Amino acid sequence: MLVTSGAEGRQLEEPRVRYLGLEMISEPVKPHLLKLEEFMWHQVEAFEPEIRDLVGYCLKNSGKRIRPILLFYSGWNGDGRVSDDLIKASAVIEFVHLATLVHDDILDRATLRHNDSTVAKRFGPEVAVLLGDALFSQALKLAADFPFVEVCREVSRATRRVCAGEIAQTFERGNAEIGIHDYLRIIDLKTAELFRVSCFLGARLGGYHDAFTKAVAAFGRYLGMAYQIYDDCADFTGNEDRIGKTLGTDIASGKVTLPVIYLLQALDPPARSSFLEEVQAGDPNDVSNLTRDMVECGALEKARELFIEHVTMGEDALAGFHDLAPVGKLLEISDFVRRRIPEPLAGCR
Amino acid sequence: MLVTSGAEGRQLEEPRVRYLGLEMISEPVKPHLLKLEEFMWHQVEAFEPEIRDLVGYCLKNSGKRIRPILLFYSGWNGDGRVSDDLIKASAVIEFVHLATLVHDDILDRATLRHNDSTVAKRFGPEVAVLLGDALFSQALKLAADFPFVEVCREVSRATRRVCAGEIAQTFERGNAEIGIHDYLRIIDLKTAELFRVSCFLGARLGGYHDAFTKAVAAFGRYLGMAYQIYDDCADFTGNEDRIGKTLGTDIASGKVTLPVIYLLQALDPPARSSFLEEVQAGDPNDVSNLTRDMVECGALEKARELFIEHVTMGEDALAGFHDLAPVGKLLEISDFVRRRIPEPLAGCR
Repeated sequence: MLVTSGAEGRQLEEPRVRYLGLEMISEPVKPHLLKLEEFMWHQVEAFEPEIRDLVGYCLKNSGKRIRPILLFYSGWNGDGRVSDDLIKASAVIEFVHLATLVHDDILDRATLRHNDSTVAKRFGPEVAVLLGDALFSQALKLAADFPFVEVCREVSRATRRVCAGEIAQTFERGNAEIGIHDYLRIIDLKTAELFRVSCFLGARLGGYHDAFTKAVAAFGRYLGMAYQIYDDCADFTGNEDRIGKTLGTDIASGKVTLPVIYLLQALDPPARSSFLEEVQAGDPNDVSNLTRDMVECGALEKARELFIEHVTMGEDALAGFHDLAPVGKLLEISDFVRRRIPEPLAGCR
Repeated sequence: MLVTSGAEGRQLEEPRVRYLGLEMISEPVKPHLLKLEEFMWHQVEAFEPEIRDLVGYCLKNSGKRIRPILLFYSGWNGDGRVSDDLIKASAVIEFVHLATLVHDDILDRATLRHNDSTVAKRFGPEVAVLLGDALFSQALKLAADFPFVEVCREVSRATRRVCAGEIAQTFERGNAEIGIHDYLRIIDLKTAELFRVSCFLGARLGGYHDAFTKAVAAFGRYLGMAYQIYDDCADFTGNEDRIGKTLGTDIASGKVTLPVIYLLQALDPPARSSFLEEVQAGDPNDVSNLTRDMVECGALEKARELFIEHVTMGEDALAGFHDLAPVGKLLEISDFVRRRIPEPLAGCR
């Protein structure tokens, strides 16, 4: 036995979840989340005996279940009853998400995830590549357990788009002249796509009509883009202990994100040239200096505005559907995000 | 533009295909194979613009289309008419196969595939991981274009099993005490599974009944195992120029395959211990010496017998269905394999 499987890996107690205050948002869907944990652990048995311990190892160190929460809220039926279809669909999304995490950790050469060794570090990159593939396969196998093809179709298309976004980001690494348009396209693909499909499937499997399903998918998409903008800003302004990672890792690896793009726009030509040289040489300025510059020149304030703009576009997508049960819940998430998530950006106002 | 896409990468002219004599087998399904090429190149447009050139690059360097040939033969309708469903299903299988090749080349640190740089070598392992994922996603997206879930279900399950087999093989690397049972389990998963599902889908989409579909799946499985046994023997006995790769790479990387297992069984305890030490130290005997030992002790002859046994089990699975159009064609493949493929083993008789 490589690891002990079991349900001891509950996500709700995780420090970062507490920091983000997600308990408030996850509370109404707690029965769903517990059922999802149980379902996912039960799925371990669906894998070949040779790799069950590995799958258990990944599950023990998996995430915050943000996408399942969105899916449950989007399919909310008014009385909080737990639907098997929503549980299964959220497990599909989480297995895809797990697969991308396992592969991302190879690409980022990460050694730790949620305070435990990454699969790549512990079992080697070979196993990590193959295990990510197996997790993704099982996600699609589960999707194919629905009697209709729509879940497979949406999830496989979304995953292709996520990968395309990550490849595009890899190609842009070290390119300090990337524009806002390219940045938004990348985060739309790599992050917003799984948020979008989570909301879409929730509403679809919750039995809602096409117009609402489309609206809720747009809500998820904008929220996903806002989430990534937040994350990219937090890489400069976050509190390392609270967000649980080292600041400045994006720019150190040549990833030029929104606040950097705005900073570059604000710099005078000589300062801009010298910054570009630093990034291209893989030796960017000290992070705290960079963050100070971003505050002073208004780059973080502009990023915050774009963040709020995306949250608002998400809310606007739901206009006209206020009579439907999910809308109240989704606006609670949106409101929560608007009020709480920009916290680390407060310094730039 | 990274590469030029186009249909110039036709596989039928490839040297290894000529060596294997696959033209004879591919001749009756040539219209299907040409349609498949066209269909796959057309699929490039289904990917996000950011990664189309990469997909084209993979297509240009892809394989022998053995699995599509099996699929076309399994769904053979008697008059050679090309069915769109069979083309689409074979493209699903080939995209999965392409994805596994792209990932395998990272794991094997391979730099060449079909005389061109591997994706991992040319674009880096990061891009190779993500591109493999995107190809696999698109395979499942195509599978979900069928109006029923069976294609998705079979293909995703098969892919999970392929990955499990490859992970098991990775864990066994350097273990010279692996038994025949474990070896057969690994090749059943990592190789035979895609052969099996190709035959299954061919018969299913060709409109054949359950009993025959099951039989033809068993045929594919045994043929796949025989194919892998052949490949593992050819790693010792092949002609480097003709099979297009360096001999002895399996054992050099600690992969203990069938002829080695039989060799170990035949060695006396001191010779066995010294061989085990060499393998564990990653420094196996010179390949030509090893091959000579395998011939002398009968290890290659035993491997050949197990190869023939699997071909025969495949043929036996089709007994009772000789009135159906695909059976004659499938037995032609089987006969071809039996007569031609063991050629490099001739030395051991």
